[in-house]
Amino acid sequence: MRLFSSPSDTDAQTGDAAWLRAMLDFESSLAGALADRGLADASVAEEIGRVCGEGRDEDSASGPAAWDLEALGAGTARDGTPVPALLKQLRAKLSDDAKAVLHRGATSQDVVDTAAMLVAKRALAPLRADLDAATDAAATLAERHRADLAAGRTLLQQALPITFGLRAANWLGGLDDATTRLAAVESRLALQFAGAAGTLASLDGDGLAVADALARRLELPAATPWHTNRSRVVELAAALGEAAGAAGKVGTDVVLLAQTEVAEVAEGGEGGGSSTLPHKRNPAGAVAAVAAARRTPALVATLLAAMPAEEERAAGAWQSEPEALDDLLRLTGSAVAAIRRSLENLEAFPDRMRANLDLTDGLVMAESLAAALGRELGRAEAQRLVTEASRRAAAEARSLAEVAAEAPEIVAALGTEGILASLDPAAYLGATDELIDRALAAHHDRVNPRPPRN
Amino acid sequence: MRLFSSPSDTDAQTGDAAWLRAMLDFESSLAGALADRGLADASVAEEIGRVCGEGRDEDSASGPAAWDLEALGAGTARDGTPVPALLKQLRAKLSDDAKAVLHRGATSQDVVDTAAMLVAKRALAPLRADLDAATDAAATLAERHRADLAAGRTLLQQALPITFGLRAANWLGGLDDATTRLAAVESRLALQFAGAAGTLASLDGDGLAVADALARRLELPAATPWHTNRSRVVELAAALGEAAGAAGKVGTDVVLLAQTEVAEVAEGGEGGGSSTLPHKRNPAGAVAAVAAARRTPALVATLLAAMPAEEERAAGAWQSEPEALDDLLRLTGSAVAAIRRSLENLEAFPDRMRANLDLTDGLVMAESLAAALGRELGRAEAQRLVTEASRRAAAEARSLAEVAAEAPEIVAALGTEGILASLDPAAYLGATDELIDRALAAHHDRVNPRPPRN
Amino acid sequence: MRLFSSPSDTDAQTGDAAWLRAMLDFESSLAGALADRGLADASVAEEIGRVCGEGRDEDSASGPAAWDLEALGAGTARDGTPVPALLKQLRAKLSDDAKAVLHRGATSQDVVDTAAMLVAKRALAPLRADLDAATDAAATLAERHRADLAAGRTLLQQALPITFGLRAANWLGGLDDATTRLAAVESRLALQFAGAAGTLASLDGDGLAVADALARRLELPAATPWHTNRSRVVELAAALGEAAGAAGKVGTDVVLLAQTEVAEVAEGGEGGGSSTLPHKRNPAGAVAAVAAARRTPALVATLLAAMPAEEERAAGAWQSEPEALDDLLRLTGSAVAAIRRSLENLEAFPDRMRANLDLTDGLVMAESLAAALGRELGRAEAQRLVTEASRRAAAEARSLAEVAAEAPEIVAALGTEGILASLDPAAYLGATDELIDRALAAHHDRVNPRPPRN
Amino acid sequence: MRLFSSPSDTDAQTGDAAWLRAMLDFESSLAGALADRGLADASVAEEIGRVCGEGRDEDSASGPAAWDLEALGAGTARDGTPVPALLKQLRAKLSDDAKAVLHRGATSQDVVDTAAMLVAKRALAPLRADLDAATDAAATLAERHRADLAAGRTLLQQALPITFGLRAANWLGGLDDATTRLAAVESRLALQFAGAAGTLASLDGDGLAVADALARRLELPAATPWHTNRSRVVELAAALGEAAGAAGKVGTDVVLLAQTEVAEVAEGGEGGGSSTLPHKRNPAGAVAAVAAARRTPALVATLLAAMPAEEERAAGAWQSEPEALDDLLRLTGSAVAAIRRSLENLEAFPDRMRANLDLTDGLVMAESLAAALGRELGRAEAQRLVTEASRRAAAEARSLAEVAAEAPEIVAALGTEGILASLDPAAYLGATDELIDRALAAHHDRVNPRPPRN
Repeated sequence: MRLFSSPSDTDAQTGDAAWLRAMLDFESSLAGALADRGLADASVAEEIGRVCGEGRDEDSASGPAAWDLEALGAGTARDGTPVPALLKQLRAKLSDDAKAVLHRGATSQDVVDTAAMLVAKRALAPLRADLDAATDAAATLAERHRADLAAGRTLLQQALPITFGLRAANWLGGLDDATTRLAAVESRLALQFAGAAGTLASLDGDGLAVADALARRLELPAATPWHTNRSRVVELAAALGEAAGAAGKVGTDVVLLAQTEVAEVAEGGEGGGSSTLPHKRNPAGAVAAVAAARRTPALVATLLAAMPAEEERAAGAWQSEPEALDDLLRLTGSAVAAIRRSLENLEAFPDRMRANLDLTDGLVMAESLAAALGRELGRAEAQRLVTEASRRAAAEARSLAEVAAEAPEIVAALGTEGILASLDPAAYLGATDELIDRALAAHHDRVNPRPPRN
Repeated sequence: MRLFSSPSDTDAQTGDAAWLRAMLDFESSLAGALADRGLADASVAEEIGRVCGEGRDEDSASGPAAWDLEALGAGTARDGTPVPALLKQLRAKLSDDAKAVLHRGATSQDVVDTAAMLVAKRALAPLRADLDAATDAAATLAERHRADLAAGRTLLQQALPITFGLRAANWLGGLDDATTRLAAVESRLALQFAGAAGTLASLDGDGLAVADALARRLELPAATPWHTNRSRVVELAAALGEAAGAAGKVGTDVVLLAQTEVAEVAEGGEGGGSSTLPHKRNPAGAVAAVAAARRTPALVATLLAAMPAEEERAAGAWQSEPEALDDLLRLTGSAVAAIRRSLENLEAFPDRMRANLDLTDGLVMAESLAAALGRELGRAEAQRLVTEASRRAAAEARSLAEVAAEAPEIVAALGTEGILASLDPAAYLGATDELIDRALAAHHDRVNPRPPRN
Repeated sequence: MRLFSSPSDTDAQTGDAAWLRAMLDFESSLAGALADRGLADASVAEEIGRVCGEGRDEDSASGPAAWDLEALGAGTARDGTPVPALLKQLRAKLSDDAKAVLHRGATSQDVVDTAAMLVAKRALAPLRADLDAATDAAATLAERHRADLAAGRTLLQQALPITFGLRAANWLGGLDDATTRLAAVESRLALQFAGAAGTLASLDGDGLAVADALARRLELPAATPWHTNRSRVVELAAALGEAAGAAGKVGTDVVLLAQTEVAEVAEGGEGGGSSTLPHKRNPAGAVAAVAAARRTPALVATLLAAMPAEEERAAGAWQSEPEALDDLLRLTGSAVAAIRRSLENLEAFPDRMRANLDLTDGLVMAESLAAALGRELGRAEAQRLVTEASRRAAAEARSLAEVAAEAPEIVAALGTEGILASLDPAAYLGATDELIDRALAAHHDRVNPRPPRN
Repeated sequence: MRLFSSPSDTDAQTGDAAWLRAMLDFESSLAGALADRGLADASVAEEIGRVCGEGRDEDSASGPAAWDLEALGAGTARDGTPVPALLKQLRAKLSDDAKAVLHRGATSQDVVDTAAMLVAKRALAPLRADLDAATDAAATLAERHRADLAAGRTLLQQALPITFGLRAANWLGGLDDATTRLAAVESRLALQFAGAAGTLASLDGDGLAVADALARRLELPAATPWHTNRSRVVELAAALGEAAGAAGKVGTDVVLLAQTEVAEVAEGGEGGGSSTLPHKRNPAGAVAAVAAARRTPALVATLLAAMPAEEERAAGAWQSEPEALDDLLRLTGSAVAAIRRSLENLEAFPDRMRANLDLTDGLVMAESLAAALGRELGRAEAQRLVTEASRRAAAEARSLAEVAAEAPEIVAALGTEGILASLDPAAYLGATDELIDRALAAHHDRVNPRPPRN
């Protein structure tokens, strides 16, 4: 179902058509691998490859017309997987010689698990491209707004000054971490080929050699059979969940910053218009990212819960995986693409950030005043004086600067100029600059890994 | 995605096409309701109704061809919901007069929320039919096998004798509870119609009256606006999760009872054949029910997590609901239909049940022997003697009857005949018969509710 | 663990000590029930009752000192439940006669399941008291602020005027729905008493009668055995999840409305001070409610996932329930108590609400202007004119009133006064008043149910 | 709550007392780090260290008596975290000089996040020790039972022969993968130290240097602030979920293999006795592992769902983390310790495995017969003949050998001896031996990593 999800380029690499394609690739490559090892004629392998390629270019939402997808679903009801029904459709198109070679040595789960890995690999390509672009966009914002003062907020209350660049650098950090993790799990995607009980028995002594040939053809690493060791599935799932969560984090911030009352950013580009309210400018990309991200933790949980599979083949757990994994790939892709759009089109309004920072009439700088005062009077006394001044300023709706300038102890300690200096947000940014530098450097190193030294 | 799910009749009532249909029904009925209240010409309402009906009979997996579903998905990316894009497609087919009436008073969420309720109502019809049939099948098994002895198992260890009928009565209890709950939530499905901020402001004083007319036309109860009060969604979700769980419970048992080493039941009918192993008879219906049920708890969690929606319209939480709800309806339908098939075709093998019950050579009756002995010697002494005899029987691989007959204290207390009587499973069934009666009576009362007394 | 949860009165009714108490109540009442049915001496039942009462009044976080809780935990490792270890501790305190009566007819799961129901019933009392108080507080706010204009927000963008009373009425609706559902599931809490395989075999023909007597003593309804029919557990869980979600919804709104830039409400009372920032006033109750609510959907999912229990006693699923259920009771109690505090102490600032509503210089009233204009010029033309005026107002940072007054078509249709009238938020509230009335009436009816008519 | 969980050595490293200890370690080390950088007197740091060490050796379930844990919980209600209340308790024990230094530069979340990392690190030590021992036990089983024939089962139906050693090697693979992942995430555990808005502003230019000194003292790597970048939390969570799932997989198999009707393994050691059924030998360790593992996916989901944290400090999401993480550490520790016990005490019964393998009278070898026949007659014809023979054998309850020996085509192709040879399970194990070797070698390499080459 795609009506209520924001589309992305992972859409084309997921869904029934993509899985069908990957299952056919398995069967086609298996025939080739059998031929590679002398267990099938090259012409037979070629025939199987040709038939498996049917309909390849005419994919639609419901899959290529060359195959009866409804019958495959009915096969799942009957057999637990669509593979027997697919083999039946294949056999109807094959010569007797090819029928004898088709699927040789494999079990249904080999087909579906390998298809899962192929689908994941193919979906990760556009997903990672969108994620890379999103990190680049965050890096650009971090650099561009490095010095633009903004209110840092905790529990959505203004706390201390930061810069908008630091916030973007934090977004960058989360997105970069997710990218690193996705790259790591991508290298774990591997072939499944083990036969009905994981022994490759039906291929006599040729099993492992055929597995190697098959792995080469599918461009996946070989692996010891993992029918009921689902570690690579859950590691992939967790990395996807992390990426979606990182996108959701950015989306949450953009939604908050775009509020009518805050108005520090807006999503540019088309879209976001309300059907009834012409003046609204909805942060549609951010909302789409949040919506997609919200659905991912439960899917990760579904896949984790499928780990305890019974003996050599699960009776229900494994069968619950493919659609959950597919949804997870698609929704993470949706979240990441949406946040990429949001970040690439984000308009930031430094004037409004600064105006918001001034909303508390200096109260947001109270910690800074206390710190300056603490250096003269000790931390406890400073805290006491500033708390009192802050309360008075709030109660009387006056600026902290004004109230502080009336407090003899504060004036004595800092002088009027010292008070004002301590209330200047730009002078109370701590390690902001260095932290932005570090995030940008880490991003740069990730994107341009240094060559290993000799 | 449907390749890896066992199909059911809910499939046709879920998915993009079903939601599109329901959204069009909303717009069509709204025009009618406006006409009912004198806020639109009848001819205009008729025009809107006709256009909304386009493509109704040519549904395919990807929806009726009269509408561009891809454009609707793109609309979701831009607007957060597909409604503005749908309105655009509708307007392109309407006269200016009709354009001015279309969607009047409504907001996007009104359309989608009401569509959710319509989709749920339509999907519950086949789902509840399957569930009813499953309960009937369980009731039949409970009656038919009321006296067929079987091993009751705890932690999958044989514990005490029961009858297969009692196990089926327990299945019946779970399925009946789920049915009752589903019926209750069905009555909570209600119209959403409140306009952009939940005030119905754009219809002046006519808002509530139009709502009533709209509710009548859609055959849904009216309700106070629930844009960010999601109680009816989560109650529906929980009831679906309960139904799927009840189906999963039966499926788990069938899988276990169908094990090669247990072999007390088998799924009849076609199917369940292995692609490589001609002799296997897989419990495919039960596995399909388990697989579908496993995916439902996480979907319920996703919907519960969407409750804390921001102010008058959520920024991401609500947008995460429709596909999760659709999946939940479809997967619960899949689980229930699969377990119905499994139960209706279940072959039970009482001889094998009895043979399994005898596997422990009487050890499974140790509690009964201890109870009989306890009435003579006191519970503690009885427990001690039986534990000793049981251990010896196990260690020496002899029957408990034999070993007990050699224990002077036991013989003295019960006599040889007393020992044998106490080891007869049929005599140690406690309230089994009464419990089956109660379950059947409760089922009967649910299916044939007594007319209210005058 | 309680260091990071906001406490509530459910705390004392949950946790190890509460479960121990409930398990002892089961054993004590079972002895009494056996005596009621003539299966045990009254003096023996009295002895068991006395021993089971030991330590009752000296509960601490780690349970009463009369019992070795560490040994109970070790028993769980050995036996899967703490019951055998508890029986051992009990027997060490009992006469031989009492030992022979203790636990008679019961199995470990009877004890734990019934304890779960008792714990739930006892925890629901303070939980429902807090929830009732929270609904009352919401009702008070709805009435008090019935006419206080505020910005209705969708996707956190200002959309249309509402009143703060309507928002509170919506909170009330969600909390009332949850209350209704909790009351319904409370009546489903029932005794578990069925013996090792659910047949009550060890009590001969007395099983069901003892069950009835036990149910009476524990003030729980009797029920057909539900060892592996977990419907009452998941229905309870779902209702708790709904209550937590309803609290989380209010908490989310309070956090948003308390933002520095919005400042429409603040939590009164003590607390919420930052450790380092003296001027902040954190919405601590709302945050606590959100934090607790966030943890509940996953716990509901854990309990739903435990439904498919194996045959007569689950091998792991059931064992995962008690702590998850306990957490769910405690966290829902925490969320509800926190939101009660938040609502009871909520300070609302109508002036600020009104000021925020004016932030867009009339743009938030564009729909109203369009509606007024539509009555004169038709909806399409009106929409076009207002969209244009709105865009101009936004671009030129002028008020919509001013810009509209320069548009000849608008002036011609409405006159200057008509324009101003249409831009008055108080005149564009639709059914707000009626909706508040309905929510308050529904609340009143729930709290004061009408006596049934004769 | 620990009454219903199987205990492990992680228990002592989790729970309120462990978090309190870790928070005190943070404050103590921070004072030391300030002294290291010349920002505090050594004597003051020493005083803070001494006070933070109070009660260290008298931990109980409810924490050291030196601290008022109830007041800390109440603090969480008031402040969102227990840190302000803890600081208050600390200050009551400190000199004025020390009060001025305590917590300097830190914010509450710095304390709690760093405590989370310390708790995780300390809990991972026993958890990984148990996991290592579990892998060793699995490796021992894989080697010892390398050649012990057993039925491989798919969907719990006998499929093909394997050896019990191969099954253990598969367990080993899953546990080894989890170990590798846990080691990787352990290196990601890092200091949090950034002050109220993540800028370290209150320490002027000394912030990053103090962070480095603090990291050194706590033996955690420094890191860029991660207040709202939760990647390290979710990566830890996912790795824990994977470990629990791998333990749950083994537990599931042990429960199934220990069934009365299968009886291929039993858990040795004490325990597992039923409270009412003296003869039962419950697989208590396996059940405990399954029960604990079942609760972990939802906790991972809770932590993933907490990623989208608002701006510089989450308003509810972060506050939901500590207890969920603590539960996850404790339950994974419980699952892993339980499966270690189960594996270390596992008794395997090769005779019974072989007897079960013979249950189908050769049908489980049908694929082998078909393969042998296929080499003579082609795969299609072979499949047809064997399917027919298998059906007849099943229908007539005779052995496949006998039936095959009556089929002229089969006899002609293979001869009687050839038929028998093809039905010998030991000759149809495919790559079993090599796969066991690979799993053992991978395990050996993980445990004894090769030194890097020069």
